[in-house]
Amino acid sequence: MILPNQNIGGQKQSEFELISRLAELCDDLNNSGTDSILTGIGDDASVVSTTAGEILLTTDAMVDGVHFRSNDKRWQDVGWKCAVSNLSDIAAMGGIPDHALVTLGVPVAVAADSYEELYVGMNHAFDKFGGKIVGGDVVSSPVMFINLALTGHPSAGPNGKPSWMTRDAANMGDLVCVTGPLGGSSGGLETLLSKKDNQGKEILINRHFHPTPRIKLGQKLIQLGVKCGMDISDGLVDDLKKLARSSGTSILIDMPAIPVESELLPIFGTESIEHALNGGEDYELLFTAPSVIVKDIQLKIPSEISVIGRVVADNIQDGKVTVHDANGYEYEPQRKGWDHLNG
Amino acid sequence: MILPNQNIGGQKQSEFELISRLAELCDDLNNSGTDSILTGIGDDASVVSTTAGEILLTTDAMVDGVHFRSNDKRWQDVGWKCAVSNLSDIAAMGGIPDHALVTLGVPVAVAADSYEELYVGMNHAFDKFGGKIVGGDVVSSPVMFINLALTGHPSAGPNGKPSWMTRDAANMGDLVCVTGPLGGSSGGLETLLSKKDNQGKEILINRHFHPTPRIKLGQKLIQLGVKCGMDISDGLVDDLKKLARSSGTSILIDMPAIPVESELLPIFGTESIEHALNGGEDYELLFTAPSVIVKDIQLKIPSEISVIGRVVADNIQDGKVTVHDANGYEYEPQRKGWDHLNG
Repeated sequence: MILPNQNIGGQKQSEFELISRLAELCDDLNNSGTDSILTGIGDDASVVSTTAGEILLTTDAMVDGVHFRSNDKRWQDVGWKCAVSNLSDIAAMGGIPDHALVTLGVPVAVAADSYEELYVGMNHAFDKFGGKIVGGDVVSSPVMFINLALTGHPSAGPNGKPSWMTRDAANMGDLVCVTGPLGGSSGGLETLLSKKDNQGKEILINRHFHPTPRIKLGQKLIQLGVKCGMDISDGLVDDLKKLARSSGTSILIDMPAIPVESELLPIFGTESIEHALNGGEDYELLFTAPSVIVKDIQLKIPSEISVIGRVVADNIQDGKVTVHDANGYEYEPQRKGWDHLNG
Repeated sequence: MILPNQNIGGQKQSEFELISRLAELCDDLNNSGTDSILTGIGDDASVVSTTAGEILLTTDAMVDGVHFRSNDKRWQDVGWKCAVSNLSDIAAMGGIPDHALVTLGVPVAVAADSYEELYVGMNHAFDKFGGKIVGGDVVSSPVMFINLALTGHPSAGPNGKPSWMTRDAANMGDLVCVTGPLGGSSGGLETLLSKKDNQGKEILINRHFHPTPRIKLGQKLIQLGVKCGMDISDGLVDDLKKLARSSGTSILIDMPAIPVESELLPIFGTESIEHALNGGEDYELLFTAPSVIVKDIQLKIPSEISVIGRVVADNIQDGKVTVHDANGYEYEPQRKGWDHLNG
């Protein structure tokens, strides 16, 4: 979901508000199947119960001129990223990817080979991280778009039963953690657009075009008892706000503890932190857990996670996120959300 | 799937060819999960086996200017039809709809209320025929589009085991049948566009905007042992050709036996048959079965089906469809496929 503050029909309306209103309509107008929803609209993936088990469901689309530019002809990269944005939603639930449906919006001007390249990129990602394309739709469209819908199933928690992370399960006292370094993808996009010949630029650009969904790591977190998490697709601060709002908590972040992509520093210097705070599409995981669980994770997979803050209050209407700098002063991030290609 | 003969990248290439090439790529590049595919790319819905039993998966998109016109502001109708096109894919497999994911491509110029109306239409359809929206995605897009992905599960065949219809199961000697009258939807569109004040026009226009997916009837066909079927979304002849190609058979259709929507006759006269042969979006079912099964169906649900032809040969490369008129002469349909809004 990447529509942080969309101007819809001339009204400034957040994605959150629109989705909330649409979710209410679904509840009001249609009672069929409500009992089968274990985790519904608003998380990275939905979890539904079926006759014989739980299924994860997610969908994510990419549109020409918004999420990629067809003129770049980087079709394999577009396919990879489209698969990864969906795989990352399954990773955010700690799940195992299963089956994918692909819808292609096909303009007259795009060569048929492009779609093959796109499918190569998608299949490479699914081959590496799990998941299989089993069907789809092809429709005429004046603008090229790709929609993926991906199913999965939950992995087992410490008690051996299917378990998954949600955004609303943060509790007072929890530590707040992230996987991997942040900011690489948006730094890569900025170096690409600036066309400056910076050293290390290729690594960042690769972070932008070839992100890694944290599928195995998400499953490991479930095994070790983590209940609250999501992926970082819209930027750390934006995504922290969603988690804080869902769980009704106040979160305090210690800025120096945020793992900043090291390749950013030679190019962006002190501005690197802005990429780590607000750059989208890193597809790392963000989670909270009691310190006893976090210590266990640090023992078992020490190099994979960073503790960046804690949940300092609960029962907070709409949630709250505060970032403290090295001197303990409140820090106001300078970029207000990262708008991908238009960032 | 509604891209009968799309000009892709300057090459005249059928949807069938593009999808075949993309399906091959999926097989070549990604072995994960292949064993779990029971019915793959090319049918109305895919069938996969999971730890949770068999699941049906389908997806269908609608694009502004191609499948609807935002200027008409018939948002509830657009939502209804988008739900129905997916529900009809589940009906085509004889299945039971379960959970839906909705992706909205959101242009700046479309008012927020439109999406609410759209959701009202979708929810009305799901409330009536089964299925529940459980999640989705909202993305910026210069062109409005709606993508639905819908899951379902198979109903039980005569032996009590999960069963579903496929396009490749037609056999020599099978009778060819359709449910309900045909041509109403495309007749409705034509009267709408012509703006003539014909009597009966409102009924046809309603057929166009408010089609009915044959969910219960599809399940009944499964119970009674039908193995081969699909829905009629691109027009009878086009869809017959797909079925004939998938099953490698030659099909002979008796034109006078085709049930033509009665409201067409006063307006279109002898041209009504062209709507029945080539008009898309009727969302009736097309199936083949041995005569003993068809006789049983005629006994149990006599008013619901029409026998329109039979499978006259098998082992036919790429399949074949022939239509005979009342005098037994081969009839060449005059409209070459129905291109919906541009028809």
